[in-house]
Amino acid sequence: MLIGISPILSPELLNALYRMGHGDEIVLADAHFPGESFNENVIRADGLKIAALLEGICPLFALDEYVDNPLAMMAAVPGDELDPSVENGYLAAIRQTWPETRPSERIERFAFYERAKKAYAVVMTGETAKYGNIILKKGVTPVSQ
Amino acid sequence: MLIGISPILSPELLNALYRMGHGDEIVLADAHFPGESFNENVIRADGLKIAALLEGICPLFALDEYVDNPLAMMAAVPGDELDPSVENGYLAAIRQTWPETRPSERIERFAFYERAKKAYAVVMTGETAKYGNIILKKGVTPVSQ
Amino acid sequence: MLIGISPILSPELLNALYRMGHGDEIVLADAHFPGESFNENVIRADGLKIAALLEGICPLFALDEYVDNPLAMMAAVPGDELDPSVENGYLAAIRQTWPETRPSERIERFAFYERAKKAYAVVMTGETAKYGNIILKKGVTPVSQ
Amino acid sequence: MLIGISPILSPELLNALYRMGHGDEIVLADAHFPGESFNENVIRADGLKIAALLEGICPLFALDEYVDNPLAMMAAVPGDELDPSVENGYLAAIRQTWPETRPSERIERFAFYERAKKAYAVVMTGETAKYGNIILKKGVTPVSQ
Amino acid sequence: MLIGISPILSPELLNALYRMGHGDEIVLADAHFPGESFNENVIRADGLKIAALLEGICPLFALDEYVDNPLAMMAAVPGDELDPSVENGYLAAIRQTWPETRPSERIERFAFYERAKKAYAVVMTGETAKYGNIILKKGVTPVSQ
Amino acid sequence: MLIGISPILSPELLNALYRMGHGDEIVLADAHFPGESFNENVIRADGLKIAALLEGICPLFALDEYVDNPLAMMAAVPGDELDPSVENGYLAAIRQTWPETRPSERIERFAFYERAKKAYAVVMTGETAKYGNIILKKGVTPVSQ
Amino acid sequence: MLIGISPILSPELLNALYRMGHGDEIVLADAHFPGESFNENVIRADGLKIAALLEGICPLFALDEYVDNPLAMMAAVPGDELDPSVENGYLAAIRQTWPETRPSERIERFAFYERAKKAYAVVMTGETAKYGNIILKKGVTPVSQ
Amino acid sequence: MLIGISPILSPELLNALYRMGHGDEIVLADAHFPGESFNENVIRADGLKIAALLEGICPLFALDEYVDNPLAMMAAVPGDELDPSVENGYLAAIRQTWPETRPSERIERFAFYERAKKAYAVVMTGETAKYGNIILKKGVTPVSQ
Amino acid sequence: MLIGISPILSPELLNALYRMGHGDEIVLADAHFPGESFNENVIRADGLKIAALLEGICPLFALDEYVDNPLAMMAAVPGDELDPSVENGYLAAIRQTWPETRPSERIERFAFYERAKKAYAVVMTGETAKYGNIILKKGVTPVSQ
Amino acid sequence: MLIGISPILSPELLNALYRMGHGDEIVLADAHFPGESFNENVIRADGLKIAALLEGICPLFALDEYVDNPLAMMAAVPGDELDPSVENGYLAAIRQTWPETRPSERIERFAFYERAKKAYAVVMTGETAKYGNIILKKGVTPVSQ
Repeated sequence: MLIGISPILSPELLNALYRMGHGDEIVLADAHFPGESFNENVIRADGLKIAALLEGICPLFALDEYVDNPLAMMAAVPGDELDPSVENGYLAAIRQTWPETRPSERIERFAFYERAKKAYAVVMTGETAKYGNIILKKGVTPVSQ
Repeated sequence: MLIGISPILSPELLNALYRMGHGDEIVLADAHFPGESFNENVIRADGLKIAALLEGICPLFALDEYVDNPLAMMAAVPGDELDPSVENGYLAAIRQTWPETRPSERIERFAFYERAKKAYAVVMTGETAKYGNIILKKGVTPVSQ
Repeated sequence: MLIGISPILSPELLNALYRMGHGDEIVLADAHFPGESFNENVIRADGLKIAALLEGICPLFALDEYVDNPLAMMAAVPGDELDPSVENGYLAAIRQTWPETRPSERIERFAFYERAKKAYAVVMTGETAKYGNIILKKGVTPVSQ
Repeated sequence: MLIGISPILSPELLNALYRMGHGDEIVLADAHFPGESFNENVIRADGLKIAALLEGICPLFALDEYVDNPLAMMAAVPGDELDPSVENGYLAAIRQTWPETRPSERIERFAFYERAKKAYAVVMTGETAKYGNIILKKGVTPVSQ
Repeated sequence: MLIGISPILSPELLNALYRMGHGDEIVLADAHFPGESFNENVIRADGLKIAALLEGICPLFALDEYVDNPLAMMAAVPGDELDPSVENGYLAAIRQTWPETRPSERIERFAFYERAKKAYAVVMTGETAKYGNIILKKGVTPVSQ
Repeated sequence: MLIGISPILSPELLNALYRMGHGDEIVLADAHFPGESFNENVIRADGLKIAALLEGICPLFALDEYVDNPLAMMAAVPGDELDPSVENGYLAAIRQTWPETRPSERIERFAFYERAKKAYAVVMTGETAKYGNIILKKGVTPVSQ
Repeated sequence: MLIGISPILSPELLNALYRMGHGDEIVLADAHFPGESFNENVIRADGLKIAALLEGICPLFALDEYVDNPLAMMAAVPGDELDPSVENGYLAAIRQTWPETRPSERIERFAFYERAKKAYAVVMTGETAKYGNIILKKGVTPVSQ
Repeated sequence: MLIGISPILSPELLNALYRMGHGDEIVLADAHFPGESFNENVIRADGLKIAALLEGICPLFALDEYVDNPLAMMAAVPGDELDPSVENGYLAAIRQTWPETRPSERIERFAFYERAKKAYAVVMTGETAKYGNIILKKGVTPVSQ
Repeated sequence: MLIGISPILSPELLNALYRMGHGDEIVLADAHFPGESFNENVIRADGLKIAALLEGICPLFALDEYVDNPLAMMAAVPGDELDPSVENGYLAAIRQTWPETRPSERIERFAFYERAKKAYAVVMTGETAKYGNIILKKGVTPVSQ
Repeated sequence: MLIGISPILSPELLNALYRMGHGDEIVLADAHFPGESFNENVIRADGLKIAALLEGICPLFALDEYVDNPLAMMAAVPGDELDPSVENGYLAAIRQTWPETRPSERIERFAFYERAKKAYAVVMTGETAKYGNIILKKGVTPVSQ
């Protein structure tokens, strides 16, 4: 544990967040996501909800302001419907740090998979909400030293 | 995820629990415990409380009935006092599966450290309660096949 | 060993089943299958019959309900004939857990090989029945926590 | 698979049996044995009974004739009783190849543990009979080439 | 050493032969063959002649009966001539176990290299006869258990 | 980089600080220290001064309040003299976060070496001040979540 | 430390500089650069400014005189402006050793990324100046022995 | 050291020469050559001149007689001139063992690079002569046993 | 293969012989020897007789002339008898290179085991003669360069 | 290659020299020394003479001035005589950089071996002079930056 760093973050996750650079992406994946098939850099966060992880991550992590949207979630498959409370919960967690954050971009399922394959890491969480996966794109960390 | 296995367990923790044999011990350590200095087999469970982990572990894990007590916790250092709610919370979680479980043995701090060094694994949890570390000794798994 | 998990499963197989996500596939291969040439993730289950493994796997493992058929076996090569008792034995084992399971899809030999190459893992069993290989596609594990 | 080698043997077990020399010992351990704590060279044979493994091993494996007894099993803990059918089943399997084999030496539990620590390998089987662990000492393989 | 397995086989070679499945190929290469450049799975058998290795391998190893020819050797380069005693020696060794074996298929040098690249393993022997390399394709091991 | 974490810390150093538990020690060693001979866990911080590192470390790192002194530096060898500005610089850096910090304990050279051998990690810095090595003992991280 | 080698260089960086040959390139990247995504050979130099590193590197490192320009920096994205003091600072550091060095070539952002992917190594520095990344191409080291 | 093997050869170089087969190539590269970028199998021979290495290698190493020329060196870049003493020195060293050796083939720079990428190994020597790199193609080792 | 080096030597054995220094010992062990239990550096030479290996090794390998005897073999266990032809065969092979070699020292079985544990390497041969193990102590390689 | 660093040093040797701290020792061993048996950190410098290596090392490497003698060589075994030209050659090489260097301490053979075991590294050189091994103890590198 360290002061000011949420102990919800494993050392492996903290390490990944720290090493990521501007433009790198990280996937917070639900417990059903086939993350080990999509990416060699899988970080386990079993038992933890994505909203709780976002609360731990966001105070450390600048979202990318140079792209249209630093957040991406899966669009509903035709015929399926999204439960808006999932994204709302995520946004509430993110907005504790970044109050101006706009709703996530929604991308088609296979486009989402392609980004998961190229991501810096995939975090396997304990989230079980449907359409609960989310991608964060890292921005330029403000320098205050 | 698998049916009937609490998703709070990481694959690494499930693997350790499965490979442990009769008499092997596992330490569920609080977030301050110097686990990486005591044991080469450290399993991270950051962000998770010990009571919640015990709820996930116990339905799978037989406690040793051949020893006086399959549970061990640290005794309070002289002058210090234990908060009984910590152990009570653990026992409540354990007794959901094993209702007859008696209160934990209390062992002196350095004796606890010695057992941590010889344990099969140390699980680094997100627990922050004082005197919150607990050792479980594995029993003979009932065969019902 | 753990309570409620068939001890027929090796720790490596349990680990693979646990890490697999929705849509991932696993091949239970007969003892003649050139599994080590097709997939880097080979799990040995020498001496064990596939029906027995299916009995151990299915209580833990949800089959994919979002595809036409979560099971795939090899179609007979032209001029060859299938022994129906092989699949029947597998279905009997699966239906102990999933009574509604329909007969397996049959795919051409080289199409089967292609799926084996992309599978999450190939399990080398002790099965010696002809046309005995079977692919399972993992579904969404029901959450009952 | 190879002709004349029982497919019950995994490649890892075959490899260990082949590399062992005169006087080396191998433990066939029951499913509760804490083998991973006693020996770095653990070979998994989950789901397989020891008698069946002995049937597969013995045609390949000469028992040591230079010691009083090439077999060792645990003596019953005082107050406990042995089920003679366990050893009888093992001897029946061994005597298919080596009909002259005498009953196993019985050694005290902690002496057994010490030999397990020094053994060439420990095989974790699916055996669940009580007092079912057995040690085989390798002899001089007859040369018939 | 194990009873009934020729001690000419190294543990690495025995392991490869055992893990190979139906249709997998192994190259027995002469001492000049650039095996380490063609295949990542090189097994050393320095000092041993190919005929002697074939005598050790064949009693364990079923040749593929589903293809036109389970043996392949290099055809002579135009202008060069084959010494028939090389193949004859190999066939004599093979026919001790498999008396019906027909002479080897002869394939062009670069086609041979391509098969060596895709083979399960290349065995670097001490053979020095010209055009002495041979490929064996594994068949379905007869089950007699 | 992450918000609120001094970018002077390498990912390896951040990782070590995070994994350390209550009572674990870390050595910030000068550029001449034979750290690679004393400890297997060496973290490079070439080119960086210890005072600067302390400024980066202390806001994250609780010093141990359960021991007489969480800081240890080498005592001067007889006949040698300490330059007080070295420790003063370190204390100034530490006191930016922990204003109550008392001067460091001074221990004999070989006692210092013994502690370096048992430390969680040794950080090789670019410090060149004489008698500039310092040991920090980690305390109980305050939980404010 | 070694005489005549700036202690600002880590052993990993010194090693890379030494092993590089004529025409190999190394990227000194700012703290925001996604270096770990672009190159497998990442060397950490956290907390160090690029100008300081250049002062340490250049006395050891010959720049390539066979190409138009051994230095490359990113051109400003359209609409953005370069702060000339960044390159000026780098050139001042380089010219302490190589006074004739001309200003850096400026290449488009994605062309820069492509060269980073093919570089011998990427050094992650503590530089935070905008458009601060620089590529050095190694020349023929003068032989004076 | 071994009798009859020049001690100028490192064990790694001897090992590579021994494992190479007919047609494999090895590059003896000058000290400026970017060998680590071209080939994963780099063998260091720092401080040693190529002529001296050739004197050590040739008594062990048959050059390929089945190709037009078993030696390849880089042709001069247009406008540049070769110093004939470099090749002459190499030929003198080679001809101590193989007096009939003809002058080396000269190939264009990028063709040379392509062959270096496919070579069995690249040896980084201490040679500093210009245009000093040379490729040797291994022949059929004469068998005199 | 290399000229003048017997192709009976595997690259691993040649490498060990080359790296050994004055006073290092190597064990040529018979096929029954429990070499893998005695030494971490085991080199396989399956199928090869010790006399043949000695013929290949001795022309390269100087025996130690600074000790009473550079050869050691096991003394017969009381009641057992040695077959003199075994050592005679070894001496004949050795004396092809070193005609003055005296008969081997004979040491007690457990003393032999202790030396095997400290040896540089143990070579597992295909020798099956009783009391066939032999230890060679390396001498000072004559320098003739 | 780097400017000012003798190309006689391999990257591995440069790396070891750089990482060594005050008081660490390095052995420059002759070609007969059993270095691989004494130390896990062996650096090959085949073909290079120790005097030449000392010429390359000394300009970078401060000898320890805090001990009686930073150099140690083996004393002659009783009855043997030292050739003074060996040490003289070493001293000449060292004194090019450190003209005040006194003759080496001479220590008994087994004491030398003990220091070799504890040394930071052993460099296997091509030196063949008798009693040619030498130990260097690293001092405090002068800081001139």
